Amino acid sequence: MSDILHRVGIKTSAIDEVYSALTTRNGLAAWWTTDTTGEGDQVGNIIQFRFAAGGFDMKVTKLHAPDLVEWEVIDGPAEWIGTIIRFELRQEGDYVIVLFKHLNWKEPVEFMHHCSTKWAIFLMSLKSLIETGKGQPNPDDVKVDNWN
Amino acid sequence: MSDILHRVGIKTSAIDEVYSALTTRNGLAAWWTTDTTGEGDQVGNIIQFRFAAGGFDMKVTKLHAPDLVEWEVIDGPAEWIGTIIRFELRQEGDYVIVLFKHLNWKEPVEFMHHCSTKWAIFLMSLKSLIETGKGQPNPDDVKVDNWN
Repeated sequence: MSDILHRVGIKTSAIDEVYSALTTRNGLAAWWTTDTTGEGDQVGNIIQFRFAAGGFDMKVTKLHAPDLVEWEVIDGPAEWIGTIIRFELRQEGDYVIVLFKHLNWKEPVEFMHHCSTKWAIFLMSLKSLIETGKGQPNPDDVKVDNWN
Repeated sequence: MSDILHRVGIKTSAIDEVYSALTTRNGLAAWWTTDTTGEGDQVGNIIQFRFAAGGFDMKVTKLHAPDLVEWEVIDGPAEWIGTIIRFELRQEGDYVIVLFKHLNWKEPVEFMHHCSTKWAIFLMSLKSLIETGKGQPNPDDVKVDNWN
């Protein structure tokens, strides 16, 4: 099994705002993809994220406000299905620290390398959303390679 | 063991330029850290990368122009020592694809999460250097959290 791991620090004392950006349709659409359907504020809910090339359906598997959000990927690219996405939040001085984990990839395929870089880009978009009021979600996200 | 993996695509037909940015002092200083000492163009050479908080010494362990560069970390933070950093390059259409691997972390510690996000930022700096002539190396790099 292989994991994608990231850490960003968001300069804010409002950890609830960060949690909200991970659990509401409007929040998620403002940093990951504008084409988001569903609310992430109840365990068992399904959230659908769409991009030009396809997308992902996530089932909310764990919530503990304001410090934990976990999803299981239930539809999307074969490599993603069954993987787990987790956001762990905590206040540390002037920052809300986000520990991000996309766990349980079966193989470290080339697509995983791409997704790792893209997750960094999108987490920086989340940081920007909270710090400045403006994220950079798909389709206006920063492109990293020929797979976008 | 845990690995950091990334993939960027650099819009260029000049794979030699990308290889040069990974194997010369001036190239490395233009996207990773301006405080770089040593040339990376010979197996066995030592390259020293410095940042405000410390730095890393790398021994060049493999070179195959223009498609492979590999270093072993021989000094720096305890978690980095003995890890392997590898850049695999190939031309794919209009892009030079860079597969990046920072291999063999003993544990997926929080510092590894931070380094994963920072590597994405620095690889985007490498992409910018080749595509626009200007990278964003330390100390003017994009900050991702309270560890910078």
